[in-house]
Amino acid sequence: MQYSNRVLNTPSSFIRNILKVTDAPDVISFAGGLPNPISFPLENLQEAINRAIDENGSKIFQYASTNGYLPLRQYIADKYNRKHDLGITADDILLTTGSQQALSLLSQVLINPGDGIIIEEPGYLGAIQAFTMSEPSFYPVTLEEDGLNLEELKVALDQPNVKFIYTVPNFQNPTGLTYTAERRKEVYELIKDRDIILVEDDPYGELRFKGDSLPYIAAGKSENSVLLGSFSKTVTPGMRLGFIISKNKELMRHIETAKQASDLHTNIFSQYAIYEYLTHNEYDTHVQKIIELYDAQSKVMLEALEEHFPENVSFTRPEGGMFVWATLNNGMTAMEFFERAMDVGVAFVPGDPFYTSKKDVNTLRLNYTNSAPEVIRDGIKRLATILKDAEIVQKS
Amino acid sequence: MQYSNRVLNTPSSFIRNILKVTDAPDVISFAGGLPNPISFPLENLQEAINRAIDENGSKIFQYASTNGYLPLRQYIADKYNRKHDLGITADDILLTTGSQQALSLLSQVLINPGDGIIIEEPGYLGAIQAFTMSEPSFYPVTLEEDGLNLEELKVALDQPNVKFIYTVPNFQNPTGLTYTAERRKEVYELIKDRDIILVEDDPYGELRFKGDSLPYIAAGKSENSVLLGSFSKTVTPGMRLGFIISKNKELMRHIETAKQASDLHTNIFSQYAIYEYLTHNEYDTHVQKIIELYDAQSKVMLEALEEHFPENVSFTRPEGGMFVWATLNNGMTAMEFFERAMDVGVAFVPGDPFYTSKKDVNTLRLNYTNSAPEVIRDGIKRLATILKDAEIVQKS
Repeated sequence: MQYSNRVLNTPSSFIRNILKVTDAPDVISFAGGLPNPISFPLENLQEAINRAIDENGSKIFQYASTNGYLPLRQYIADKYNRKHDLGITADDILLTTGSQQALSLLSQVLINPGDGIIIEEPGYLGAIQAFTMSEPSFYPVTLEEDGLNLEELKVALDQPNVKFIYTVPNFQNPTGLTYTAERRKEVYELIKDRDIILVEDDPYGELRFKGDSLPYIAAGKSENSVLLGSFSKTVTPGMRLGFIISKNKELMRHIETAKQASDLHTNIFSQYAIYEYLTHNEYDTHVQKIIELYDAQSKVMLEALEEHFPENVSFTRPEGGMFVWATLNNGMTAMEFFERAMDVGVAFVPGDPFYTSKKDVNTLRLNYTNSAPEVIRDGIKRLATILKDAEIVQKS
Repeated sequence: MQYSNRVLNTPSSFIRNILKVTDAPDVISFAGGLPNPISFPLENLQEAINRAIDENGSKIFQYASTNGYLPLRQYIADKYNRKHDLGITADDILLTTGSQQALSLLSQVLINPGDGIIIEEPGYLGAIQAFTMSEPSFYPVTLEEDGLNLEELKVALDQPNVKFIYTVPNFQNPTGLTYTAERRKEVYELIKDRDIILVEDDPYGELRFKGDSLPYIAAGKSENSVLLGSFSKTVTPGMRLGFIISKNKELMRHIETAKQASDLHTNIFSQYAIYEYLTHNEYDTHVQKIIELYDAQSKVMLEALEEHFPENVSFTRPEGGMFVWATLNNGMTAMEFFERAMDVGVAFVPGDPFYTSKKDVNTLRLNYTNSAPEVIRDGIKRLATILKDAEIVQKS
């Protein structure tokens, strides 16, 4: 059987492939991107679920509309208008089966084989995977400390048939970097008059533990803006509930058709349950608890990195979110480091799957949200021993 | 913005587009394909959900594996081995976001633009929509009383790059027809030595109210078999839970990659909830109740059709499932009939969206599962008045 080019060219997820190894009980894993289960509002969710059933009966178990449960879309519109002044209505929102599905739908409706996608380098591997299924040409643009490199962005924008730019402006996956206010404006100036969609994927935006929340690059300002959100990092990822926000009616109509073809509609039981949870609990207080937890865990990791890692390893200092990005400057590739790290029972994600055009890189992603402080310290110490051994070998 | 060819060529669902009209409270709708909400095991599901939370805690709210919850896959394997002697293991099963997603994934991994799909004519419109997103060439084969027309099938099998055949062998959507045992064998003989996948989509198989259950065409016999199942028609469609069964390891590996790219994994909360429901309740007794309900409702519709419809309208007599298929032989197209039917407050689905190569057809789908007996009688009577008026006009 000859399989489709799209699937033959699509990498299976490195993270999901190593789950069996990294999930072993004696392995310290900084590999996944899992929220800390402590952060799930278990009791309040259970109450919300029972209330949703008691009050709505069989209709939460029936087929439902493709764009999603109206009160939940209205809740999201009100929240983004209040917090980010977007000027949107419930009709500008479509609920998706996690924001992974939003990435898949966007590329399905915008990309013919060979059309261009501008992507941060390094970029989110789930996005690379979703987009690759539509057989695009990737135009990677270096993600710097302040955001996308503007010179590279200018060149990329002039490439043929570029359909959209994919960004994660807050606490990016994998780097943890956040675009500065200045860089957001500069990127907006470059794209605002072009027939190119700017996608801002913002699953972590609420999880800021340092500094002030910044305005989006294009959301609320441009017809060509698409903003993605998710309940996975603040309520539950297991229910797979994300959303697409855009005032671009034509785009949203095509996305709705693609959504029908993909899975008819998003799990309606979960939509009711999460709506009930959001409207009957102090969501902001709950998010504040997650922020404090991740703030503490990130501090522990950064302190351990400072204390134990050799000076030739640099790393980012995130203001929120879930990840630290480290760069080895000792001649070792991240894959070599990964293999030796498995020997000492520590896992992380080598940088390779976050690049569309590079291999054998010297960068890696460390997750701090899903390990207790003492485990983080222990894991970083173990990794440090490998790096020190490597230095000794190098010097000898 | 230039959208992708795949989405520009994909019809949005006729059924979903007319929902606003057909869902009005004063409209009698035979249009949808909704299970009767009476059939949802509401109380037992609520118990199962609470048990799932109490016993498993936060892990049912966390990210999960792409192929699905192992005990549920094992349950499905055991059931199909017991009832259909398929000889499968849990690893031959992947849980999907409804069986609509299974249709989407199959075409994504098998079809390059222009590759062939053999489809029943008329065929399931959700499948036509899902497949069209992969830009195939459709080779429709007439679905007759006994199953696919064999002469047409032979010709279609010899078309270039045919990748799979899509069938609904039991109580087909839209016709309600069931392949005979003999025709199943004949189809199997034609396909068994070819490098072509046979998809058997069987969401209604358990809902048989007449005759005996028949062996699948290829499931359990051939490496090239794919069997699709769903909990939508017997437990709940709202939770979007379906499954793919195939012993073809290479195919399943590609489907898993496409599934990761599409939505990472199926809602794990719902997988646990439905597993708890299935393992703590008399599922067969529950299904028996649905069968009795639909048997009664189908009888009412068939009797009303016999009594009120003119003789030049023919219709199928399903042995199970949810639909009757009617053919007008009075010169009227189904779309004309539909428009007049809306004037008397009755909706159905005109046949057009079930064909890949025909327009202005004289066939239509009637659903009997989601209306009470007296409503069914009233609706069919109202439709009959239009047909009688048309006859008078024709004669005069």
